[in-house]
Amino acid sequence: MRPNHVKRAWKEKKQTVGGWISCDSVYVAEMMARTGFDWLCIDMQHGLLDYNDVRDMLPAISTTDTMPFVRVPWNEPYLIMKVLDAGAYGVIVPLVNNRAEAEKAVAACRYPQDGIRSFGPIRAGMYGGRGYAKYANDEVACIAMIETAEALANLDEICTTPGLDAIYIGPSDLAFAIGLQAAGDNSDPKHVETVNHIYATARKHGIAVGMHTGSLEYTKRYLDQGFDMVMLGSDTAFLGRLAGMELREAREATGTSRVEPGEDYS
Amino acid sequence: MRPNHVKRAWKEKKQTVGGWISCDSVYVAEMMARTGFDWLCIDMQHGLLDYNDVRDMLPAISTTDTMPFVRVPWNEPYLIMKVLDAGAYGVIVPLVNNRAEAEKAVAACRYPQDGIRSFGPIRAGMYGGRGYAKYANDEVACIAMIETAEALANLDEICTTPGLDAIYIGPSDLAFAIGLQAAGDNSDPKHVETVNHIYATARKHGIAVGMHTGSLEYTKRYLDQGFDMVMLGSDTAFLGRLAGMELREAREATGTSRVEPGEDYS
Amino acid sequence: MRPNHVKRAWKEKKQTVGGWISCDSVYVAEMMARTGFDWLCIDMQHGLLDYNDVRDMLPAISTTDTMPFVRVPWNEPYLIMKVLDAGAYGVIVPLVNNRAEAEKAVAACRYPQDGIRSFGPIRAGMYGGRGYAKYANDEVACIAMIETAEALANLDEICTTPGLDAIYIGPSDLAFAIGLQAAGDNSDPKHVETVNHIYATARKHGIAVGMHTGSLEYTKRYLDQGFDMVMLGSDTAFLGRLAGMELREAREATGTSRVEPGEDYS
Amino acid sequence: MRPNHVKRAWKEKKQTVGGWISCDSVYVAEMMARTGFDWLCIDMQHGLLDYNDVRDMLPAISTTDTMPFVRVPWNEPYLIMKVLDAGAYGVIVPLVNNRAEAEKAVAACRYPQDGIRSFGPIRAGMYGGRGYAKYANDEVACIAMIETAEALANLDEICTTPGLDAIYIGPSDLAFAIGLQAAGDNSDPKHVETVNHIYATARKHGIAVGMHTGSLEYTKRYLDQGFDMVMLGSDTAFLGRLAGMELREAREATGTSRVEPGEDYS
Amino acid sequence: MRPNHVKRAWKEKKQTVGGWISCDSVYVAEMMARTGFDWLCIDMQHGLLDYNDVRDMLPAISTTDTMPFVRVPWNEPYLIMKVLDAGAYGVIVPLVNNRAEAEKAVAACRYPQDGIRSFGPIRAGMYGGRGYAKYANDEVACIAMIETAEALANLDEICTTPGLDAIYIGPSDLAFAIGLQAAGDNSDPKHVETVNHIYATARKHGIAVGMHTGSLEYTKRYLDQGFDMVMLGSDTAFLGRLAGMELREAREATGTSRVEPGEDYS
Amino acid sequence: MRPNHVKRAWKEKKQTVGGWISCDSVYVAEMMARTGFDWLCIDMQHGLLDYNDVRDMLPAISTTDTMPFVRVPWNEPYLIMKVLDAGAYGVIVPLVNNRAEAEKAVAACRYPQDGIRSFGPIRAGMYGGRGYAKYANDEVACIAMIETAEALANLDEICTTPGLDAIYIGPSDLAFAIGLQAAGDNSDPKHVETVNHIYATARKHGIAVGMHTGSLEYTKRYLDQGFDMVMLGSDTAFLGRLAGMELREAREATGTSRVEPGEDYS
Repeated sequence: MRPNHVKRAWKEKKQTVGGWISCDSVYVAEMMARTGFDWLCIDMQHGLLDYNDVRDMLPAISTTDTMPFVRVPWNEPYLIMKVLDAGAYGVIVPLVNNRAEAEKAVAACRYPQDGIRSFGPIRAGMYGGRGYAKYANDEVACIAMIETAEALANLDEICTTPGLDAIYIGPSDLAFAIGLQAAGDNSDPKHVETVNHIYATARKHGIAVGMHTGSLEYTKRYLDQGFDMVMLGSDTAFLGRLAGMELREAREATGTSRVEPGEDYS
Repeated sequence: MRPNHVKRAWKEKKQTVGGWISCDSVYVAEMMARTGFDWLCIDMQHGLLDYNDVRDMLPAISTTDTMPFVRVPWNEPYLIMKVLDAGAYGVIVPLVNNRAEAEKAVAACRYPQDGIRSFGPIRAGMYGGRGYAKYANDEVACIAMIETAEALANLDEICTTPGLDAIYIGPSDLAFAIGLQAAGDNSDPKHVETVNHIYATARKHGIAVGMHTGSLEYTKRYLDQGFDMVMLGSDTAFLGRLAGMELREAREATGTSRVEPGEDYS
Repeated sequence: MRPNHVKRAWKEKKQTVGGWISCDSVYVAEMMARTGFDWLCIDMQHGLLDYNDVRDMLPAISTTDTMPFVRVPWNEPYLIMKVLDAGAYGVIVPLVNNRAEAEKAVAACRYPQDGIRSFGPIRAGMYGGRGYAKYANDEVACIAMIETAEALANLDEICTTPGLDAIYIGPSDLAFAIGLQAAGDNSDPKHVETVNHIYATARKHGIAVGMHTGSLEYTKRYLDQGFDMVMLGSDTAFLGRLAGMELREAREATGTSRVEPGEDYS
Repeated sequence: MRPNHVKRAWKEKKQTVGGWISCDSVYVAEMMARTGFDWLCIDMQHGLLDYNDVRDMLPAISTTDTMPFVRVPWNEPYLIMKVLDAGAYGVIVPLVNNRAEAEKAVAACRYPQDGIRSFGPIRAGMYGGRGYAKYANDEVACIAMIETAEALANLDEICTTPGLDAIYIGPSDLAFAIGLQAAGDNSDPKHVETVNHIYATARKHGIAVGMHTGSLEYTKRYLDQGFDMVMLGSDTAFLGRLAGMELREAREATGTSRVEPGEDYS
Repeated sequence: MRPNHVKRAWKEKKQTVGGWISCDSVYVAEMMARTGFDWLCIDMQHGLLDYNDVRDMLPAISTTDTMPFVRVPWNEPYLIMKVLDAGAYGVIVPLVNNRAEAEKAVAACRYPQDGIRSFGPIRAGMYGGRGYAKYANDEVACIAMIETAEALANLDEICTTPGLDAIYIGPSDLAFAIGLQAAGDNSDPKHVETVNHIYATARKHGIAVGMHTGSLEYTKRYLDQGFDMVMLGSDTAFLGRLAGMELREAREATGTSRVEPGEDYS
Repeated sequence: MRPNHVKRAWKEKKQTVGGWISCDSVYVAEMMARTGFDWLCIDMQHGLLDYNDVRDMLPAISTTDTMPFVRVPWNEPYLIMKVLDAGAYGVIVPLVNNRAEAEKAVAACRYPQDGIRSFGPIRAGMYGGRGYAKYANDEVACIAMIETAEALANLDEICTTPGLDAIYIGPSDLAFAIGLQAAGDNSDPKHVETVNHIYATARKHGIAVGMHTGSLEYTKRYLDQGFDMVMLGSDTAFLGRLAGMELREAREATGTSRVEPGEDYS
């Protein structure tokens, strides 16, 4: 079976950099994979895509060594099982609040007797290769998002959930959780302190810890801080950011205003 | 009928900046449109998309005032007619070599008696609104690409084709046409000279002239030169360029190497 | 941020007329939107479509001022959040039975501290525009369907759920709830009485109230009665009704019978 | 092999009524088929759909006895062959101008030695059943549209093309051909006269003749006149017509104006 | 209404043979249906497809008399209702553990007063035909999978659930349930004994009983044993098995090794 | 750039075995690729798929070393260019009749100065890797089908077309060409003789030669004969053949008849 070298890297204290996929294009998925990220996460929660999009995008990522992760939209066992069957090697589960929910997520990622995953790795067996049934419980990464007030209160018990491979911070929802406005990259001292607390707690319990960013600046900050998995940016954010910036610069540098629509013919 | 304000701008000597769409995502199309380009071109030639992708992407562009153009994959009347029926307000026709081919492209864009377009503006009538049948011949922009040696030889006769609204330079194929290697933004003197010659010829005949670029730098250059339509960049090029640049910087700044895949389980 | 003018109309005691979308065609969605309904609801419950269909259809509705609503298939928070992220301005939640379920639906529509909606309005932010994060809780309409016996028993407590914007009657399931056969437009006195009771209860509590119909006749009846939102008909019902009626008339008026299939070649 | 009972009906002087499919929904295709038309034509020319839409819609029509026709976007042999392979039993070819073009269309519909159709009836063999290879040349209907000035000039030679099963009038393009504005159902005397001339010419040569309409009124007129195939209406026209009419009536009868969008939040 | 002749066959002690669909191709679905299975199950659990795939595949099955079943990915009422609305005549529900879960599955399949199914058989009404609302509760087959340790402990109470039509054994998960490795066709004595026990229990309670296999050999075994529904194989398993076997044989018989990729150009 | 190791194998007199893809499933494409064929051909001519299907299936093949070929539906330059841009490494062109048509096919596969291919290898550049622009003309395989009477008459001139890499026999159309009924694997002496003649002609001119089969038996025959590329079978043929055979055997061995549909409820 193909090993999950990202999960292994975490065990060896190597840091990983990932990307995010929010749009439903197989071509974009392959392009992101060929960029050289250690892992890519197809986002079924806030991303504009659904299961059958994911199904067709995972093979495109499999043209490379980039590890394919999927964020499921909810801690729903069947959704976790379906993306694993399609070949995801990691599952990011949003809004995990407590130990019971973390255990539920882990159970959906593991075949019995370790969990309750139903057997049928229809594409995963092809991608993973011989031995998938035997080793999948070890290789699939189960990652719980820490982003709610309840999760902050239960952080120790979540971090010590058997079989949980990593926790992952969602900064926008985390801002809500500590009474701030939603914002991604966040330098509010309270936010920074909370992130530091989560990081320290993960380190204390020996579980990998990841951080979601929206910029190079914050990615560097969190890599420097020691995070095991840092998310640099999403497909559509890269696209939108550069397109917007260059269009503004082109117009400004050349004095080319946007042309205005005229009146309709009557 | 909704007017084609990009075509009108050209007549009023206003310059326009456009974008390019190469992937098959409705969401990406809307995101590009909301960036503020004057026009967007969905590329059916080299872009990874087909007619039914275009059909679903055009409404997303129609949530804004950005003018929707389509590059057809070939000077094929029925393909031109199909994208016009779907609501394109401009058609970019690749590889136009001579007057006859330019006339063929124009004819496909115009209802009789001006041309041979078959009547059935099934979505165009909704998007264009009342009066489409009457005014479409005036408003739809027919744009011929100049990018072959034969076209260079026939430049005057192409530029004077009745009903042709603009010529548009494809720099990579143009490089082939003058014996160079394919390359987009091109500062080879021979390439620059050829572009200048095309620009001057268009100006001489009073036809709008456009240029395809892949960078802010060249966009500024051609806007400064006076081109009527300059293409700044494509969705996937923006995406790939920024993702690649930031990933390299993140790795270099923090000393985070890509993690390597390990051996399979035997 | 773009306001939800349908929700505002209800507050100003203006009535609204809506349409329903049951098939998976972007073109049909745009056509329905351009018909001039105040709101359109894409039906993920009984309609033959799924999330990625909705994602591509919402931009088509956004070419007009028609407010985009979605009926989710179940009172499932993540489904509500996903359609809101895609740009829905209203969510119709089926089979709400009691206060707890109504509160659950509302919570999924509101960002903290008002609710539990996770932050990531990936298309909604584009469609809604600047200020979405700040005003979305006010503008998004949360609409609970009243159609079960349990809901009838709990009508007062549902109608007074904080943050619930409207209740909406599903006449077929309501017929089941009061011991009748399923039927849409229904003049059974018991059904009429129940509808009247729901209407009066909504009025008593000052919550907007809507009614689902399948005909012009019943739409007029309920508009005359004062309903705030009345659903006139669905895309496929319009299609099927007129096609069937005209085909019958064409055959009858001209004596043109359907031609019968013959025997296969052996 | 399943016979083409529409083509047989024409030979037996039975009239047939058909419908038109312009949108890309499998469900709509099945709904149209279950309405009871003798034949249905999926429109790849002006309809908003492409080959892979047609491929998935043809099985839906095959749940009934309705004969599946496809209008190809152009007289292009490979497009004709592809829709036949997918199970179309009739092909409507637009804009046929002369004998050579009619022969080209027929040749694409017939296996050698009668024509040049390439062998590979991948779905047609399933739908048609045993004997398809042997009988397909007899059963597949090849139908040429008469809608250009050139075709009017060459009407006799087109109508006598060996293997051509029917001619079909496209009224909008025909209006162009005789110097009128494009319009579907057309009572302009010149248009009526031209239609009558085409009808008479077809009768003279013993070839079936069809007419495209957009209303019950004109369908009855042409059935009364004796046309062999009359097209009553398209999916989206039925939908749009009834939705628009009922919405207007609902608003007018109840005095319910459309609610207006308000100002954006600043 | 069209009857469910598979469900009737079980009552008449006739055995049925079924097939399985795991890939998202309408054409493959029709091909499987035309093979002559008594029933076909589209697999939304481990199969690589989602609801809108199922929606387009069901009509393809409806071109034949083969009964269309769907395995939902989870015992989730709204998913069951959605596939029934799309025309499924049977629902296979995975991982049913006890009486309460079996009752939940049955309730989702039945309109009130027998259950809680919401009314809106949008395609089912077309496929089922007149009387669907009246007879659907009798004709739709609700089938619970027996494949967990908990289900084995609760077998009698599951088998006697009112309205449950059949139980269906999932051999791989069942192997987990009794402490074995996951494997499909299984001759481990403990597995055989468990299957026999389930079979006997079903017979005792007079409920139909089905078995999932992956081979002709096991299909024959279970048909000989008397199972009411035996699953012979899936689309992709047939494909993969024969392609692999013939490719090996072709290479071996002719000494044709696989050609190896060379070095990249540098 | 990634080399085309199939084309190289032919030069080294190594034989290759290929497969065929006729259905529109990414999963099936990956499954076929993982079976171990030297090359796979996605069939846009008789296969039930279109360009955007091909676009999403090519990455699935790229998860393996199997060389991706595409059969275009017609000798149409833009279609050839589009599949090459999407990453095909070989193009099979049907119905090539003479030297001019062979040259036309070759020209569409080669960048200037060798041909007329337009530059924009949007996915091909990612798949092929660095150097694609420089080496693509050498690596892309252009393969002409020999299957018409005209081609037989012009065999020498076709086989000596500069830049043509292989000829490929389509046995069904070839049967038409020599006056036989269409049939795939064909032992008619006239057919065998024709195949032998084509083989010998190719050998004489030193061009690779391929054969399309539908069975293991014929694949072995042609490999033994020395063909450079032999096509063993298509996805759907494998599927249909094994499903049909095993279903028959299961029914016969166990005496399980197909259950018959009953009467509808009235």
